[in-house]
Amino acid sequence: MNHNQEGLQDTGRTASNKLMVETSKTVKVLAPATVANLVCGFDVLGMCLEDPNDLMEVRLLDEKKIIIHSADGYPLPSDPMQNTAGAPLVEMINELDNNTGFEVIIHKKIKPGSGIGSSAASAAGAVVAANHLLGNIFTNTDLVRFAMFGEKVASGVKHADNIAPCIYGGITLIRSIHPLDIVPIPSPDLFVTIVHPQIEVRTKDARQILRKEVLLKDAIRQWGNIAGLVAGFMQNDTALIGRSLEDVIIEPVRSILIPGFDEVKRRCKEAGALGGGISGSGPSIFMLSTERETAVRVEAVMKEIYNSIGLDYNTYVTTINKTGVKIIND
Amino acid sequence: MNHNQEGLQDTGRTASNKLMVETSKTVKVLAPATVANLVCGFDVLGMCLEDPNDLMEVRLLDEKKIIIHSADGYPLPSDPMQNTAGAPLVEMINELDNNTGFEVIIHKKIKPGSGIGSSAASAAGAVVAANHLLGNIFTNTDLVRFAMFGEKVASGVKHADNIAPCIYGGITLIRSIHPLDIVPIPSPDLFVTIVHPQIEVRTKDARQILRKEVLLKDAIRQWGNIAGLVAGFMQNDTALIGRSLEDVIIEPVRSILIPGFDEVKRRCKEAGALGGGISGSGPSIFMLSTERETAVRVEAVMKEIYNSIGLDYNTYVTTINKTGVKIIND
Repeated sequence: MNHNQEGLQDTGRTASNKLMVETSKTVKVLAPATVANLVCGFDVLGMCLEDPNDLMEVRLLDEKKIIIHSADGYPLPSDPMQNTAGAPLVEMINELDNNTGFEVIIHKKIKPGSGIGSSAASAAGAVVAANHLLGNIFTNTDLVRFAMFGEKVASGVKHADNIAPCIYGGITLIRSIHPLDIVPIPSPDLFVTIVHPQIEVRTKDARQILRKEVLLKDAIRQWGNIAGLVAGFMQNDTALIGRSLEDVIIEPVRSILIPGFDEVKRRCKEAGALGGGISGSGPSIFMLSTERETAVRVEAVMKEIYNSIGLDYNTYVTTINKTGVKIIND
Repeated sequence: MNHNQEGLQDTGRTASNKLMVETSKTVKVLAPATVANLVCGFDVLGMCLEDPNDLMEVRLLDEKKIIIHSADGYPLPSDPMQNTAGAPLVEMINELDNNTGFEVIIHKKIKPGSGIGSSAASAAGAVVAANHLLGNIFTNTDLVRFAMFGEKVASGVKHADNIAPCIYGGITLIRSIHPLDIVPIPSPDLFVTIVHPQIEVRTKDARQILRKEVLLKDAIRQWGNIAGLVAGFMQNDTALIGRSLEDVIIEPVRSILIPGFDEVKRRCKEAGALGGGISGSGPSIFMLSTERETAVRVEAVMKEIYNSIGLDYNTYVTTINKTGVKIIND
């Protein structure tokens, strides 16, 4: 499907106004939330979610210029290079040898700081929409490369474990960043329950508390688990997925920042979840289940725990989004 | 196929001599060489080879006793618990509540200390043969559990990255040792070239020179690679297999013990190999290729390098053995 014609004012225009009409093309996209790390795949695995999504409107400009608006009234930095959607677009237009720019309106539905890829959604949504308006001249790998500049704005580090699944959909392995090597990992249809306790865990802080060295024996256990997780996804072996959702390196350190984490994990597994853990650098926690009713039961457990702690929270019961950022037609 | 009847003296025996006849049952097996680690899968991945193989003859005894002979005249310790084939069988018969024992003759074709699973072949061959004589009452997981006692005799450590592929065949992931969790990884048909330079690298020494701590960033790179390697095997993506055959943790340290290693690796890849590295703890080096003619060209490169260094060597061009220890019928 080609939605490039959205936003044209009429169809009876003459050749002389073609440029103006072309440059007023707009597109709307849904940019989904993502879960980075997937417990044992720190910095290399990510998974795309059906919900929640940011809604973004992107308009083509005939000027080498990036303008970003927040539809929700968030104050945004005037320099687009300081914005998670802006920086990727600046990188993109710098590779074009013409006067092209983009104006972006972001309806933010994925809460910044939630740990489910809020900054990645802005960055990935912007570049997918812009590329669509350009006639898809860039590859997905190019788009990941651009979008990582948004992650650098957000956290200081150009990581792709939210960006790649947001653009490719499904579960992706980022085998390497230099050079960029992204491997889509087929997976069974699983249900995902997310709880976002309303506390702030800054990605920078969550990264800083990690030790720079790890025990070789722990690293071995971790790479056994990630190999098992990938094999489990590809062979549709949900028991193996469950056994492999174990993190002996990052989780023991980071989970300290998330009130109720151990209880959530233990009781969600008792309620039938295959397993789960910290989403990205937290504070959100995700759990995988094979059945929707299990995922809903898991959500009830999460609610009960945060109600009893007395901490505000959001929950989502959703599925794996297999296609990534969606061009929409309304 | 059931080869349990091999070794029966005649078929006209009476009921009264049944026990004697039963206990004189023998079986022959081919116990294959294996490549542990597979570059980025230190301690968790292993691959079974078609060649070379130890030939082992195992006879059932009606006495709780293990006897091991070397057909090649190697002096063996009198205590079977000090022997790589004996220790696993002692563990096995200790789980039987009857007077059963085994006598084993080993024709050693896989050179001890070569790094292609010589001790694992003895241990795995012994337990598969013994289990066959017992009517396959133990599972493959049980057999791995017994056979690991042989590895403990050989290297002081109960590891399964040679044992598991030797018993299961193909490529196996040992996700966990406690509890034992073995995952067969389907793989494309690949050709394997091995060179065994005739120097001694003791597994204990190769293990001792490893640092107990590794950089988190190196561990991340390693688990990206093992995830890529598993995905490459399962998706028949030979380019991905090649890119993932990278080890930033163990190889840089251990390869120092193997003369010519860097040149072998570089020139074999130039000759068309997908990649490869140290087999187990060395000194053997393995290379994977998609075509037999490439694997033969790779062998020629290996020969040239060790001829010019002036070091004796053996080479093998073989394939992945999909079935593990083979019961044979002659």
